Amino acid sequence: MRVTALRVLGVDPGLTRCGLGAVEGRPGAPLSLVAVGVVRTPADDDIGPRLVAIEAGIEQWLDEVRPDAVAVERVFAQHNVRTVMGTAQAAAVAIVCAARRGLPVALHTPSEVKAAITGNGNADKKQVGAMVTRLLRLEAMPRPADAADALALAICHVWRGGVQNRLAEALAQARSGRTVQSGTGQSKGARR
Amino acid sequence: MRVTALRVLGVDPGLTRCGLGAVEGRPGAPLSLVAVGVVRTPADDDIGPRLVAIEAGIEQWLDEVRPDAVAVERVFAQHNVRTVMGTAQAAAVAIVCAARRGLPVALHTPSEVKAAITGNGNADKKQVGAMVTRLLRLEAMPRPADAADALALAICHVWRGGVQNRLAEALAQARSGRTVQSGTGQSKGARR
Repeated sequence: MRVTALRVLGVDPGLTRCGLGAVEGRPGAPLSLVAVGVVRTPADDDIGPRLVAIEAGIEQWLDEVRPDAVAVERVFAQHNVRTVMGTAQAAAVAIVCAARRGLPVALHTPSEVKAAITGNGNADKKQVGAMVTRLLRLEAMPRPADAADALALAICHVWRGGVQNRLAEALAQARSGRTVQSGTGQSKGARR
Repeated sequence: MRVTALRVLGVDPGLTRCGLGAVEGRPGAPLSLVAVGVVRTPADDDIGPRLVAIEAGIEQWLDEVRPDAVAVERVFAQHNVRTVMGTAQAAAVAIVCAARRGLPVALHTPSEVKAAITGNGNADKKQVGAMVTRLLRLEAMPRPADAADALALAICHVWRGGVQNRLAEALAQARSGRTVQSGTGQSKGARR
């Protein structure tokens, strides 16, 4: 089976700092960094303008990076009750931006990402950052941590998600006749 | 002080059923029903297509109803842990759709809505539905309950939010120079 390189945009969702990191690669081969950064919104702004700013930032990233898939951190209601709703809402914006373009969207839990990158589902942020730096052969650890976490998500998806991803995409295309998405999303072919 | 009628779209967010209800009125005067309904998405679809379908549904409602403001139920992480993330994500989509158009967005808690409509912050769904039916002089209670809840949110906002709303809108316009929203949102004037 021939496996072509996958370009994945990872999103570590957040209202104050939304981490974005794109990598390209395939399982068993060296990975390469495409882009890394964060979209920030002012903590004293209303939720509406903040989500709109995040949407505009992600749209710009999707235009420039042109990923094959988007990996978003799966948010749980149990964790960090104070900020979790904002995190879930930033994640929703990232998911909508990707799905509108017909891109496959994968959700990975923080433990899945840590386990994929470091071999330990309970690894701390520093360890994840160190492995991301090594795997992408960078000179320094990406900062802030949200940017490194977004790269970790993207790497996790390249390693875990390649095959499942193409299956999900095929299923989504087979299904598209019965969802509203078919009218509003762009097909993969039209995106080129 | 002259108070003109406000047209408000209420959104009771949810992935399976997203309630939408629009009313027009002003404090101290009879209210009128503009439109009521739900946007549904299949429970077995992926989160991406579901959020995109909700976005398309809300966009269509905003185009047709042309509200002056949008009121969305405020979601708390403590409640209904199993469904709360989907509810928060549907709410995020509603907030983005409204904020992109430069519409003021207000969040009201379920207790605020129940207290505004029935005088009791712990009222049950049936009581809220009965009061919505009476206040809008409808022949039958709007169904499903999500649709009635969306109308209750809109009525609550007409009664509570009128003045705060215009203040928030003025503030948002004053601020708009420093947010990304100013580049992507439409101004109120351009919307006509």
